[in-house]
Amino acid sequence: MAIDQVAAERLIGQFERIRSLSEKLASKLQNEDTIIQAMPDVSPPKWHLAHTTWFFERFILKEKNPSYVPFNPKFDYLFNSYYETIGSYHPRHSRGVLSRPSMDEVYAYRDHINTEILSLLKNYEDQLPKEVEDLIEIGLQHEQQHQELLLTDVKYNFSCNPLLPSYTESSSSTDHTNSEQKSQVTEIKIEGGLVEIGFTGAGFSFDNERPRHKVWLNAYEISSHPVTNGEYLSFIEAGGYEQPEHWLSDGWATVKKEKWKHPLYWRKSEDGWYTFTLTGEKKLNLDEPVCHVSFYEADAFARWSGKRLPTEAEWEHAMSSLPIEGNFVEEESFHPMVGELYSKSPIKKAFGDVWEWTSSPYTSYPQSKPLEGALGEYNAKFMCNQIVLRGGSCATSKWHIRPTYRNFFQADKRWQFSGIRLAGDLT
Amino acid sequence: MAIDQVAAERLIGQFERIRSLSEKLASKLQNEDTIIQAMPDVSPPKWHLAHTTWFFERFILKEKNPSYVPFNPKFDYLFNSYYETIGSYHPRHSRGVLSRPSMDEVYAYRDHINTEILSLLKNYEDQLPKEVEDLIEIGLQHEQQHQELLLTDVKYNFSCNPLLPSYTESSSSTDHTNSEQKSQVTEIKIEGGLVEIGFTGAGFSFDNERPRHKVWLNAYEISSHPVTNGEYLSFIEAGGYEQPEHWLSDGWATVKKEKWKHPLYWRKSEDGWYTFTLTGEKKLNLDEPVCHVSFYEADAFARWSGKRLPTEAEWEHAMSSLPIEGNFVEEESFHPMVGELYSKSPIKKAFGDVWEWTSSPYTSYPQSKPLEGALGEYNAKFMCNQIVLRGGSCATSKWHIRPTYRNFFQADKRWQFSGIRLAGDLT
Amino acid sequence: MAIDQVAAERLIGQFERIRSLSEKLASKLQNEDTIIQAMPDVSPPKWHLAHTTWFFERFILKEKNPSYVPFNPKFDYLFNSYYETIGSYHPRHSRGVLSRPSMDEVYAYRDHINTEILSLLKNYEDQLPKEVEDLIEIGLQHEQQHQELLLTDVKYNFSCNPLLPSYTESSSSTDHTNSEQKSQVTEIKIEGGLVEIGFTGAGFSFDNERPRHKVWLNAYEISSHPVTNGEYLSFIEAGGYEQPEHWLSDGWATVKKEKWKHPLYWRKSEDGWYTFTLTGEKKLNLDEPVCHVSFYEADAFARWSGKRLPTEAEWEHAMSSLPIEGNFVEEESFHPMVGELYSKSPIKKAFGDVWEWTSSPYTSYPQSKPLEGALGEYNAKFMCNQIVLRGGSCATSKWHIRPTYRNFFQADKRWQFSGIRLAGDLT
Amino acid sequence: MAIDQVAAERLIGQFERIRSLSEKLASKLQNEDTIIQAMPDVSPPKWHLAHTTWFFERFILKEKNPSYVPFNPKFDYLFNSYYETIGSYHPRHSRGVLSRPSMDEVYAYRDHINTEILSLLKNYEDQLPKEVEDLIEIGLQHEQQHQELLLTDVKYNFSCNPLLPSYTESSSSTDHTNSEQKSQVTEIKIEGGLVEIGFTGAGFSFDNERPRHKVWLNAYEISSHPVTNGEYLSFIEAGGYEQPEHWLSDGWATVKKEKWKHPLYWRKSEDGWYTFTLTGEKKLNLDEPVCHVSFYEADAFARWSGKRLPTEAEWEHAMSSLPIEGNFVEEESFHPMVGELYSKSPIKKAFGDVWEWTSSPYTSYPQSKPLEGALGEYNAKFMCNQIVLRGGSCATSKWHIRPTYRNFFQADKRWQFSGIRLAGDLT
Ligand SMILES: [Fe+3]
Ligand SMILES: [Fe+3]
Ligand SMILES: [Fe+3]
Ligand SMILES: [Fe+3]
Repeated sequence: MAIDQVAAERLIGQFERIRSLSEKLASKLQNEDTIIQAMPDVSPPKWHLAHTTWFFERFILKEKNPSYVPFNPKFDYLFNSYYETIGSYHPRHSRGVLSRPSMDEVYAYRDHINTEILSLLKNYEDQLPKEVEDLIEIGLQHEQQHQELLLTDVKYNFSCNPLLPSYTESSSSTDHTNSEQKSQVTEIKIEGGLVEIGFTGAGFSFDNERPRHKVWLNAYEISSHPVTNGEYLSFIEAGGYEQPEHWLSDGWATVKKEKWKHPLYWRKSEDGWYTFTLTGEKKLNLDEPVCHVSFYEADAFARWSGKRLPTEAEWEHAMSSLPIEGNFVEEESFHPMVGELYSKSPIKKAFGDVWEWTSSPYTSYPQSKPLEGALGEYNAKFMCNQIVLRGGSCATSKWHIRPTYRNFFQADKRWQFSGIRLAGDLT
Repeated sequence: MAIDQVAAERLIGQFERIRSLSEKLASKLQNEDTIIQAMPDVSPPKWHLAHTTWFFERFILKEKNPSYVPFNPKFDYLFNSYYETIGSYHPRHSRGVLSRPSMDEVYAYRDHINTEILSLLKNYEDQLPKEVEDLIEIGLQHEQQHQELLLTDVKYNFSCNPLLPSYTESSSSTDHTNSEQKSQVTEIKIEGGLVEIGFTGAGFSFDNERPRHKVWLNAYEISSHPVTNGEYLSFIEAGGYEQPEHWLSDGWATVKKEKWKHPLYWRKSEDGWYTFTLTGEKKLNLDEPVCHVSFYEADAFARWSGKRLPTEAEWEHAMSSLPIEGNFVEEESFHPMVGELYSKSPIKKAFGDVWEWTSSPYTSYPQSKPLEGALGEYNAKFMCNQIVLRGGSCATSKWHIRPTYRNFFQADKRWQFSGIRLAGDLT
Repeated sequence: MAIDQVAAERLIGQFERIRSLSEKLASKLQNEDTIIQAMPDVSPPKWHLAHTTWFFERFILKEKNPSYVPFNPKFDYLFNSYYETIGSYHPRHSRGVLSRPSMDEVYAYRDHINTEILSLLKNYEDQLPKEVEDLIEIGLQHEQQHQELLLTDVKYNFSCNPLLPSYTESSSSTDHTNSEQKSQVTEIKIEGGLVEIGFTGAGFSFDNERPRHKVWLNAYEISSHPVTNGEYLSFIEAGGYEQPEHWLSDGWATVKKEKWKHPLYWRKSEDGWYTFTLTGEKKLNLDEPVCHVSFYEADAFARWSGKRLPTEAEWEHAMSSLPIEGNFVEEESFHPMVGELYSKSPIKKAFGDVWEWTSSPYTSYPQSKPLEGALGEYNAKFMCNQIVLRGGSCATSKWHIRPTYRNFFQADKRWQFSGIRLAGDLT
Repeated sequence: MAIDQVAAERLIGQFERIRSLSEKLASKLQNEDTIIQAMPDVSPPKWHLAHTTWFFERFILKEKNPSYVPFNPKFDYLFNSYYETIGSYHPRHSRGVLSRPSMDEVYAYRDHINTEILSLLKNYEDQLPKEVEDLIEIGLQHEQQHQELLLTDVKYNFSCNPLLPSYTESSSSTDHTNSEQKSQVTEIKIEGGLVEIGFTGAGFSFDNERPRHKVWLNAYEISSHPVTNGEYLSFIEAGGYEQPEHWLSDGWATVKKEKWKHPLYWRKSEDGWYTFTLTGEKKLNLDEPVCHVSFYEADAFARWSGKRLPTEAEWEHAMSSLPIEGNFVEEESFHPMVGELYSKSPIKKAFGDVWEWTSSPYTSYPQSKPLEGALGEYNAKFMCNQIVLRGGSCATSKWHIRPTYRNFFQADKRWQFSGIRLAGDLT
């Protein structure tokens, strides 16, 4: 099976747009910034730039052309992230020691692979095999994921520097604080029943979103808005971080061990609360969606509120017909906003702003099949001890998210733009 | 609401039987054995004896009688396991330093509380409040859980002693190895649809088993037997522990970190495989159910087999009509057996022998409610990063298990009598 | 070379006295107490009883009689402490899991080896080889060292139990608090020059005390008394634990990491300071020598005082002519005392009460030779990262100590009866 | 007291030469290289450049001029290394997260401080206070120490990168391999007696080298040459790393824990041994001095050889009259060499090539006085758990070393250019 000329050109356009966005995002950094790794969960920006490139080289150029000569044979070891079945790799927690290849070399690597992929695409002309198209598509989706990680990782890295560097200047055009009304939160009632979730139809989806399948849902309600900083601050001020009754056992242990008193990046000063953002530290805006909370905090907040988190099926069922609109990376705010950009639905901010923790552990869908070969490691092997998040964030590309999209992190992670939407039972 | 005389007498009988079983199980130990804690997951036998007693004292005697004078006021600190909302407690990992109270004192404590509870029961006569009955019932169920833990913990403790002590003598009357045929494994096909799981009706159940609720199941198959040592050995010999493709990411990391090569308690000798049991080390019987595997190993074995683990809903749906028969602690084999004791069903060994790992993370059932007060901490706060096991084991009491019963442990735990039953999709 | 009848009988007497003291010390414990190990530095009392016995079996019975049949062949693995050159051994930090052999078995082991050694001694009659005598002597000195460790280890173990058990009743006859005057501290001036230290002459000494050798000492002064609790409390109250300028870099890091605020076993209550002792917790007596301080604390206290710790050569030179008198284990006070028992010297409490930290790292003396064979591992291999202490303590046997005796621990250890004597330069 | 014009000009010249050498050494790096910290013991090159600058700012500009406005007030926190008494500081192990200030900013900082110091020097003219001169001198000595660390740290950082980058090109003019004869090792006999060690006289010395004082030395011998790679390889091939009898207890534990099989940077390939150097990986030259061994390895090698390490007094007494000649950083070999450059003495390579481990723990000299104020923290507080090394290395400046110079590291450190010279007793 092959794809036609128009599709090929669309793919070439996508390839160029997405690949160049990575470089645009990195261009705001100094060379020294591109190599740091302030904790094992984050990767140095340079590593993201090289790894996403290696992904195309390894899974397309090398797989499809047995005589392909690698750009540098050691890059398989350096830039393989976690694909066990194709060979050993540099330990994740040591990516920060790789000052070489230099940024110049990484850009040369990117250029080289871009040329090779584009020449592949152009050479196939009207007969590009579906399988190659799929691989390029997954390579681009993969690069979009790493673009979000690059931003979250830079934010974390910079937050560890007492100089509190800014990734970029605040863009006033993206500040919606004053032009928007604080919205009234309402609870949307949803009927439930035997519904279906999961991806079906045309377009890209990851293997973990498939197949579409039946799920029974009791009637439930879901909040119109994500929880705000102000609402979360009430929890803090009510002693939420000192009261074990709201917390999961592992969550409470983490609170005590890590001495958590508030979300990541918050700081209490004499004149009130501040939060660190990609545009520097700023006064905490109480009307913005709360962000950089762990699942443990989201779950404790919900229990303290007399509510609960939605399951991922409830979330998807509620959001499945909403348009993909919101505060995405394309807005270049790099931070959750007050107010909505477009939404006319009663449910606000379903997409963009903050990833929303669900109550669902990340597991495989019934009868799901991972991809063949090493790419089967892309998602399936992480289906243990992680929690699903939905909806994308201010660091996600608008072109990357779907109602069926499943993100996932461990319950104690906070460096992603992760927030809270409440749900409840109806009886 | 109150319970009548017959019920009260039944409860007294149960109380006496269950309480004395703990002492019978402990009586096979020397005093020195009762204090060791070879890893943080296990508790010293003496601690189990005292903690289960404290449970009656704290949640019944103290709650129901404000003027109750505690046996020893420091026992609240020493023998509270994890109830955060009623006060601080001795750190779990340090239970092995508590040489005092001595065994003599702990037995005096048990006698004292037994007398108090029985006098409470006898004094109420025909008007025992339902609430007190429920608390005594949960106290007895709790004690049964700790009886199983006492055995698994002694087994672990003894396995760390190069002298490999036996907990008890092997009872030949419980050796079914030679008298039973090796059974033929078959795959039982089950139709699925919109089914119900969860406890309903009379009798005791834990809050985590309720409410009964609808679940959609695709048609599936489930194995007639748990996986045997022989089948598991094929996985080992095929290189299963060296091949990352079968493993979850966290599982593979654990295999490498812990240098796992086989289930816990197995040892390869020049003349073949041995396994450590509560009756000492013995030759590995290939026809016995495999035991002391982690969820990671169960999952990897299933994937290697081209199968999968059942979800807990599939497991419960398949087993819900089977009689509660099997190799329980009452058999005093203290080890999984070859062959069945009674079952006429095509599904064998659903109960007893080994706990069966499901693929389901431990989460709350829709619209479930934890118990009121501190006992709400009993189950609900552990619903994160744990996996459900079903069916009970050779260390479980026959009178403790139900088809709806949910056990749960972290994915890397192996010291319980945990085994594997396979399932698969039908298309 | 052989020893004569009288010497043999003296050795038999010593053997019986020292061996039975171990059992007397252990007799105050319950069986459960004999197996606990509350931190890796301590050993369970039962392990001490067995290890000291194994020492005689392994280094005498087995070495001297090739046909000797061991009491239990696994004891070589279980009760070898650290002799790498004779085989592998049970990991030190896991001694607390060894509930077996039971105390009954360990006593049977002791009896068996006692009988064997005594029969060996009696059989040699007037021709006991010097080499065997030396080995028995070292075995007895070794047992005396473990008698002290048994007491310090029980104290530590009990201190971790919130019930704060007493090892023994306080013996009023050994309480010198009221009968003695608080002594006046003076500084004793000592001339120095080219002096000699190290053991020479008859009687037992360890290899680390030899050979006697020349050392140049500048004139110095040394305090007449060890530092008292009251003096140390002034350091605490002056903020000593919050001021980095007094501390070695490693010491300050330890203070912060361990959150040290006072010596081990001290507790501040509303009505003043308490300290835990082998006879239970009691009010801190300000006139007693301070005890259970690390080298870091001793060194910081000295610097804060405008003084310094003595070198081991200064200590030995000052004390070499004093009689071996003091508060030893034979007093059964099990705690440092106020006042002196006998001393007529201007230097008080040189021996007994508390081990005194010197400023000297533990290194080998010039031209020293470790013992031949595995016993060469007894002392020499520990000559790195340890500090010398001198003088013995209230848990040391009077018959064990000498002016040349070198004890040694890491700079952060506090569970020994370790205290402080100040010194200073004279110009 | 003040210094005269000539001295001031000499100091200005020194200042310019030493400060610019740091920049010359750093100029071989790419910006990305300047920020990595591959283990807590090393610091990023950029940090060295900034910290040495801060040293002048903090201890001279700020101390001497109360109205001095700091270049950046946060640099006190960022670039204070360990001076507890002047304020808190960025944790050592996190220096690798400081991508900012950028290299450009650090160079601006250096220029600014250089200008300030030179202007200070020039303004004083013929009346520069001795105290300021001393502070500048110590600042320059400090910078020289960090120049050596910069090289050792870059070497370590690069060794962790699978690309094995070279710091610089190998300079053939510094390769003495072929032009020199392999030297004959002899044992130099030295008489000992009551000798003196420690610095006295004119010129700079650190407080830890003073005061000169008497030490008694027995007659001893010391090797004419440091131990070579070939000699060390014999130890490896004889099983030295598998035989506990040669090792200190802590050393053996380290060998097992770290799985040491050879010196740091060695690698065994099919065609023999390689070693990583600042000019890339190269074939191991058996005639070069062995390098990058820990004290544990040096001590074990010496014991295996039937010798011992010299004490620092023995070393200093033997070397005190030798000229300061050798393979220093000025040679730009950045690696120990075969053969001597100049020495006519029977003792070869006393200075340069490799630091030589002594057997002496690092302690204060009798009656020594640390510097006043915060600079008292420079040396004295590290006098615990460290071992003295003598003689300088190929990464030390010729103008920095003295016979009385005391370097010190923990016994397990290997990333310095540390080697071995043997000694022995004479009887
Ligand atoms: Fe990736
Ligand atoms: Fe419990
Ligand atoms: Fe010993
Ligand atoms: Fe420095």
